[in-house]
Amino acid sequence: MRVYGKNVALAILQENNKVNSIYLSNHFKEEEILRFISKKNIPYKIIDSKEMDRMESGLHQGIIMDIEEIKTYDLEDIIPSIKKDNALVVILDHLEDPHNFGAIIRSCEAFGVDAIIIPKDRSVPINSTVYKTSVGTIEKVKIIKVANINNAIEKLKKYNYWIIGTDMEGEDYTSIDYKTNIALIIGNEGKGISPIVKKNCDYLAKIPMEGTVNSLNASVACGVFLSEIVRSRK
Amino acid sequence: MRVYGKNVALAILQENNKVNSIYLSNHFKEEEILRFISKKNIPYKIIDSKEMDRMESGLHQGIIMDIEEIKTYDLEDIIPSIKKDNALVVILDHLEDPHNFGAIIRSCEAFGVDAIIIPKDRSVPINSTVYKTSVGTIEKVKIIKVANINNAIEKLKKYNYWIIGTDMEGEDYTSIDYKTNIALIIGNEGKGISPIVKKNCDYLAKIPMEGTVNSLNASVACGVFLSEIVRSRK
Repeated sequence: MRVYGKNVALAILQENNKVNSIYLSNHFKEEEILRFISKKNIPYKIIDSKEMDRMESGLHQGIIMDIEEIKTYDLEDIIPSIKKDNALVVILDHLEDPHNFGAIIRSCEAFGVDAIIIPKDRSVPINSTVYKTSVGTIEKVKIIKVANINNAIEKLKKYNYWIIGTDMEGEDYTSIDYKTNIALIIGNEGKGISPIVKKNCDYLAKIPMEGTVNSLNASVACGVFLSEIVRSRK
Repeated sequence: MRVYGKNVALAILQENNKVNSIYLSNHFKEEEILRFISKKNIPYKIIDSKEMDRMESGLHQGIIMDIEEIKTYDLEDIIPSIKKDNALVVILDHLEDPHNFGAIIRSCEAFGVDAIIIPKDRSVPINSTVYKTSVGTIEKVKIIKVANINNAIEKLKKYNYWIIGTDMEGEDYTSIDYKTNIALIIGNEGKGISPIVKKNCDYLAKIPMEGTVNSLNASVACGVFLSEIVRSRK
């Protein structure tokens, strides 16, 4: 996977992620990054900054890296090993926008979410935009890939999780008791949570709104829910 | 300004925004939009879908429109006329990312914010990405442009607003009494709120986090604050 930009590069170099190759522009001077590259003895190529612009149209800031794909997990690898009260897992039901995915990963890391569950198919891929929007926090959050979200929900129920779907037909999200294991489902940007998944939820919850569009950006909605879960558990 | 996409087009056509020209692909069939175009008697051009792809690299969905610039206001036009208890205004201190700006506008509309204040210079322009990310809600929220944020803060204080800056050094955001007129300041994505603006705040408030990056995406942070202000005022 190709990623770029200073913050992303630094996050990757700080973790023990496998870096296949690094391209630096001839103007690149970021000392902390250069120190990591030399300390870890990673081979790099210095190339002309114009050639770099051709390699990557995004804001690369003079550094492009080819790295190993992000490690993802199976549900059974992670969920049974979460040994704490009030675990918190986020399920993304076929999200489409990489900016939303990255911002959600960042929020999940900030609010101490234990794992993010995504479907294997028909979902936003883990690409460089996701990486960049997550500000590298994707390295620190456990991502579980599942073949089927409904099967994942059934398993989570067996591990004593309450399944909460975000939906405009739900109850006010501030009236729910979050002091238990929670799996929060965020739906697709346009279509919301799919009907069968909705049927499998223990609760549906909504953020009351007064506007005309009557919904929030998916990553904003996720952040609002996570903040309320964390606040109300205190 | 050039905008595109079905939702955006529909939002514009529903409002009385001045449309200069409309381009439809020869495959465009969205009936509700076509009805509005014919009802309002707006001239349009039908063009080949490949030519449309050349006109606009974004996901245009077969409709591109050239519209008048979004109307913005002066502070004195809007703030004195907000006659209610617990007014709520959002100030964006040199935001950079159009996705964030659009998502913030959408949240502001959803949570009933009375106006958004942005600086005239060195700030994200109101472009088609902003329009699209706001899902057309930019048509419904009042946007105030000011030459200087600190002067705007001084004026808001005279109109009895409490100025709350979002900052990692602040108090826990859930411990603040929001039952008064509030101006909430969201800082730049990388640099946060500028030092002079910070000094002029009545309160600094933070969202407690446990992660390593220790900050949220700007639009997520704004959404979390707005939801807490609305929740705590109930």
